[in-house]
Amino acid sequence: MRLRHKPWAQDLIDQHPKFVVPQAEQYKGMWQDKFQKQQPIFIEVGSGKGRFITEMAKTYPEFNFIAIELQTSVVVSILELQLELNLPNLLILHTNGRHLNQYFEHGEVNRVYLNFSDPWPKKKHAKRRLTSPEFLEQYQSILHPEGEIHFKTDNQGLFEYSLASMSQFGIILKQVWLDLHQSDFEGNIETEYEMKFSARGQRIYRLEAYFPQKEI
Amino acid sequence: MRLRHKPWAQDLIDQHPKFVVPQAEQYKGMWQDKFQKQQPIFIEVGSGKGRFITEMAKTYPEFNFIAIELQTSVVVSILELQLELNLPNLLILHTNGRHLNQYFEHGEVNRVYLNFSDPWPKKKHAKRRLTSPEFLEQYQSILHPEGEIHFKTDNQGLFEYSLASMSQFGIILKQVWLDLHQSDFEGNIETEYEMKFSARGQRIYRLEAYFPQKEI
Repeated sequence: MRLRHKPWAQDLIDQHPKFVVPQAEQYKGMWQDKFQKQQPIFIEVGSGKGRFITEMAKTYPEFNFIAIELQTSVVVSILELQLELNLPNLLILHTNGRHLNQYFEHGEVNRVYLNFSDPWPKKKHAKRRLTSPEFLEQYQSILHPEGEIHFKTDNQGLFEYSLASMSQFGIILKQVWLDLHQSDFEGNIETEYEMKFSARGQRIYRLEAYFPQKEI
Repeated sequence: MRLRHKPWAQDLIDQHPKFVVPQAEQYKGMWQDKFQKQQPIFIEVGSGKGRFITEMAKTYPEFNFIAIELQTSVVVSILELQLELNLPNLLILHTNGRHLNQYFEHGEVNRVYLNFSDPWPKKKHAKRRLTSPEFLEQYQSILHPEGEIHFKTDNQGLFEYSLASMSQFGIILKQVWLDLHQSDFEGNIETEYEMKFSARGQRIYRLEAYFPQKEI
């Protein structure tokens, strides 16, 4: 994503602690209190400009959504959308996905969305991919036992890597789509990227996965 | 595959018990004795006309190969290739993949190849797919602990199904290729089908997978 420098971004973020939660670590285990309704929490790691998560929050008022994004200039785009929409079930977390267990309690999150994450194509950068073991460990530590990971990308290499990485981590694939837009999948909400790439005829890959229940 | 009726096929097969092993159940646990050299055994379930397995046997004399095929008129095509080549490391088993554990002992097989298996696209026929649980159970029961399944297909639906089916069975994906012929995979030996389909620009999907080691 090309980042525009927005010197005013941090100021705007600071003015809206209601939407972009400051000192978010303190809400670990208590995110439900930050929302109007107590209902399952779905997070998106790497929300970009926020089209997906705001559309999801609009479409599914019965779930709470948290957009997680590190880049200040992009967080502000999500914030601008939310300032227009004022959705009661959407919060923004200004951080990256490396320390999710500092922000969420075990089992506090019901679904993790990963959409068009940076493919980091060089092998030496594999650790930065959001489906590398270090990140999968984070998702595992915060996901509800019946929680799921929903991942989509147009990047073939990242999808190939992710299938093997998840499998080797012990994650189970619930379903896989190798050409989402030509499939019978219903209710797909497109990200900004997805709209651009699919208009070029690029295939979109998608998977849903879950961690096996631990045997007691 | 279009099957030609070959009334003489069974006769030809019967004349070559050296290549098409009759009463093969009796060799359960003793397949090594049927080959000139004791070396890892790789089987292909559904060998079709046999190009893949004969080329493999030619290319890799350090492994023993068993072509498994049910259709008499196709078994005879493999046999005809073998009558020309007379490969010491290739045998043919005239049966289907449903009862592999009647033919092989636990751990007797080091690799299972599945190439362009019938996709059985209708959901009600899912059980007939060679990557459905019933078949995976067979592979598990005969594979060596370090054995692998190598599967390729041009059929997107079958590949999507197989990724999820294997994963839910507890099989681990070692590596996945979503466009084999455009990848840096080396030494790919094409089946008859593959040559035809890839000439049409069809994508070829491939995976390598293994069963997790049982904890002791």
